[in-house]
Amino acid sequence: MPNIVPVILCGGSGTRLWPRSRASKPKPFLPLVGDSTLFEAALARCPADGGFSSPVVVTGHKHLDHVEQQLGAVDGAQIIVEPSARNTAAAIALAAFRLPEDAVMLVCPSDHHIGNAQAFADAARAAADLAGEGWLVSFGIEATAPETGFGYLKRGEPIGDKGYRTAQFVEKPDLERAKGFLADGGYAWNGGIFAFRVKDFLSELSEHRPQIASVVAEAVAKGSADGQRFHPDAETFATVESDSVDYAVMENTSRAAMVPVNMDWSDIGNWHALHEALPRDANGNSVRGNVRAELVDCRNVLIDSDGPRVSVIGLEDVIVVVDGNDVMITTVAGVQKVGKLDGAANQ
Amino acid sequence: MPNIVPVILCGGSGTRLWPRSRASKPKPFLPLVGDSTLFEAALARCPADGGFSSPVVVTGHKHLDHVEQQLGAVDGAQIIVEPSARNTAAAIALAAFRLPEDAVMLVCPSDHHIGNAQAFADAARAAADLAGEGWLVSFGIEATAPETGFGYLKRGEPIGDKGYRTAQFVEKPDLERAKGFLADGGYAWNGGIFAFRVKDFLSELSEHRPQIASVVAEAVAKGSADGQRFHPDAETFATVESDSVDYAVMENTSRAAMVPVNMDWSDIGNWHALHEALPRDANGNSVRGNVRAELVDCRNVLIDSDGPRVSVIGLEDVIVVVDGNDVMITTVAGVQKVGKLDGAANQ
Repeated sequence: MPNIVPVILCGGSGTRLWPRSRASKPKPFLPLVGDSTLFEAALARCPADGGFSSPVVVTGHKHLDHVEQQLGAVDGAQIIVEPSARNTAAAIALAAFRLPEDAVMLVCPSDHHIGNAQAFADAARAAADLAGEGWLVSFGIEATAPETGFGYLKRGEPIGDKGYRTAQFVEKPDLERAKGFLADGGYAWNGGIFAFRVKDFLSELSEHRPQIASVVAEAVAKGSADGQRFHPDAETFATVESDSVDYAVMENTSRAAMVPVNMDWSDIGNWHALHEALPRDANGNSVRGNVRAELVDCRNVLIDSDGPRVSVIGLEDVIVVVDGNDVMITTVAGVQKVGKLDGAANQ
Repeated sequence: MPNIVPVILCGGSGTRLWPRSRASKPKPFLPLVGDSTLFEAALARCPADGGFSSPVVVTGHKHLDHVEQQLGAVDGAQIIVEPSARNTAAAIALAAFRLPEDAVMLVCPSDHHIGNAQAFADAARAAADLAGEGWLVSFGIEATAPETGFGYLKRGEPIGDKGYRTAQFVEKPDLERAKGFLADGGYAWNGGIFAFRVKDFLSELSEHRPQIASVVAEAVAKGSADGQRFHPDAETFATVESDSVDYAVMENTSRAAMVPVNMDWSDIGNWHALHEALPRDANGNSVRGNVRAELVDCRNVLIDSDGPRVSVIGLEDVIVVVDGNDVMITTVAGVQKVGKLDGAANQ
C-alpha cells in the first residue's frame, strides 16, 4: 500500500466571500469554519501517522507568506512557487515533476471544508489503492442538493469494492439537469480532489497535452530550490498552456475512476455555503467571530464581524459581514453577486 | 403685533435613532436632515428679522455643552439649565418666570424636522396673534397618515381667520381611530408646538397645577445667573411635580386654540420617519453621510454610515446604520424595537 503525497493547491484569489476574504487575506488562509484556516485543515487531514507523506504545496507568490506562516514546521514539506497562474493541469504537473514516478499524489484544493475527516481519510486510502493499480481517480462527492455550480461525475462499472469507473464527466448543469442527477442517484459532485501515480498522470498529460508536459518539465529542470521553496523557471513557465486538470487529463484518459465519498463537504463557494457549513441556533442564526451580536425576530441570519457589535431586527435569510472599513449585507438569493460588488471587484 | 420669544426645549435622551443618536450625542444635536442639526434648524426658524426675540433654551446639564456649542453667538440668548428632568409643564414654567408677563412664548421642541420654514413662520405669526388675544394655542399639524404615535387635536369653531378653538385633545389613538381621524379631516396632529402669553400660561398653570406654578416660581427666585446660563435652585426644583404641558394646562384651559399648519413636519421618531424625511433616489434608496455605498437590487433602503463603505444586495424596506463600533440593521417593520436593543437600552 503506497504512501500518499498530499499535493495542496493554493491558487486563485476569490471575491465571493468578500469582504472577509480579500486579495490580501484570501479564503484558504482564513478560519472560516472552526479555529483552523481551510489551508491548515487541509494539511491536518493528511497526517504522517495516517499514511501520508510530507505535503507539496503549490502556490503563487502572493500567497507565499500565508503558506509559510501557516505551514509552520511540517516535516519535509515542499512549496512550489508558481511563477504565474496557469490553472490546475500545469500546477499539478509542477508537483509531479518534483516527485518520484511511483508516488501517489492526492491533489487537494485548500479552500474547501470537509466536516468528516474520517470519511475523507477512508476515501483517500481507497483512491490511493486504485491509483496504485493505475487508475486516475476523482473523489465523487455525494450530491445532496441540485447544485448548478459544480461539475458532476457519472458513475460507471464498479472496480472491486474500492470505487467505480467514471462513465462521464458532466459540465455544470442547469437546475433541471441537476435535479435529474440528484433523483437518478448515479451522479456525484466533482470537488477537484484527485489521486493518481505520478507516472500515470504524466503519461496521460504527455499524451493529451504534450505542450503542458514538456514545458513544465523544462521549467522544473531549469528551476532552483531555496530552502523548502522550489522556484520553476519563470520565463519557461510563462509559456505553458493554461488548462484545468479535468479538461486536460481526466476527461481524456480511459483509466478514469471515482471513489464515492460522503464527508460533509463544501467548497464554501459563497456566503450561503459558508452559513450552511456553520453551526446554527434554533432560529437558524449564526454569529461568527468573538463579537457581540443581537438578533431580534431574525431567521437564518449569518453575522460575521471582525469587531463591531451587530444588532439586527426582523431579517430573514440575510448575511451581514463587517470587515475593516467595509460592511456587506446580502440576501441568500444575492450571494452570487457579492463578487461583482465594487469593493470585491476592485481590490 | 407682539414679538415672539422662541422657547426651545432640549430634553430627553432618546434611543429610537440608536446607534446614530446616543446618550453622548443626542438627536437634537445631530445633522439628521441636511447639514444643520435639528437644534440649529429650530433656532434658524426663529430669526430676529422674522419678528422673533432672542431665544430661551431650556435644557439639562447633560446637553449643556451641545447647546452652547451649537447656539453660538445668538444675541441675547438665554439658557435655562434644568437641575433635573420634570417634563414639559415645569420646563416651560421655568422660561415663563424668566420672561416679561406680556411676552408671547413660542414653545418648540428641538428634535423635529420642519421642511417648509415659511409655513412654520406663517403659523407662528398667526399663533402669536391669537396668543396676544389671550388664547393658548397649539400648532395643529395637518395629519397626512393614520399615525398612532401622536396625540390629535379636534378642530372646533373658527376664531376669525387665524385659527380655531380646540374642541378636544385626543390621546394617541389605535389604528382604527387614527384612520377615522384622517378620513374625518377635522383632526390634526399635536406636535408639541405652542404659543401663549406668559401671564396666560402662568395663570392657567396656577389654576390647574398650583404646585408646579409655586415650586417653579420659588426655584427661579432662588436661582442664579451665570453669564447666559440661568440655574434654578436644584433642591427646590427637585420637588416639582412632573407633568406634560398638555395634561397640566392645554387640556384644562377653556381658552385652547389651534392654528392649522402644513409644513412638511416630522418628529423623526424612528429610523423609518427619518428615511421618509430624506431625499431618495428612483428606487427609494437614500445614503446619508459622505460615504461610499453600493446598492444592488435594493428598494427603500436607507444607509447611514459614519465612515465604512456599505454594500448591500437584495434588501427592501431596510435601514442600515453604522456608527463607531456598532452596526444596526432593521426592517421598517422593526423600527419600534430599535430603542429596546441592548446597545440602545444600555448606553
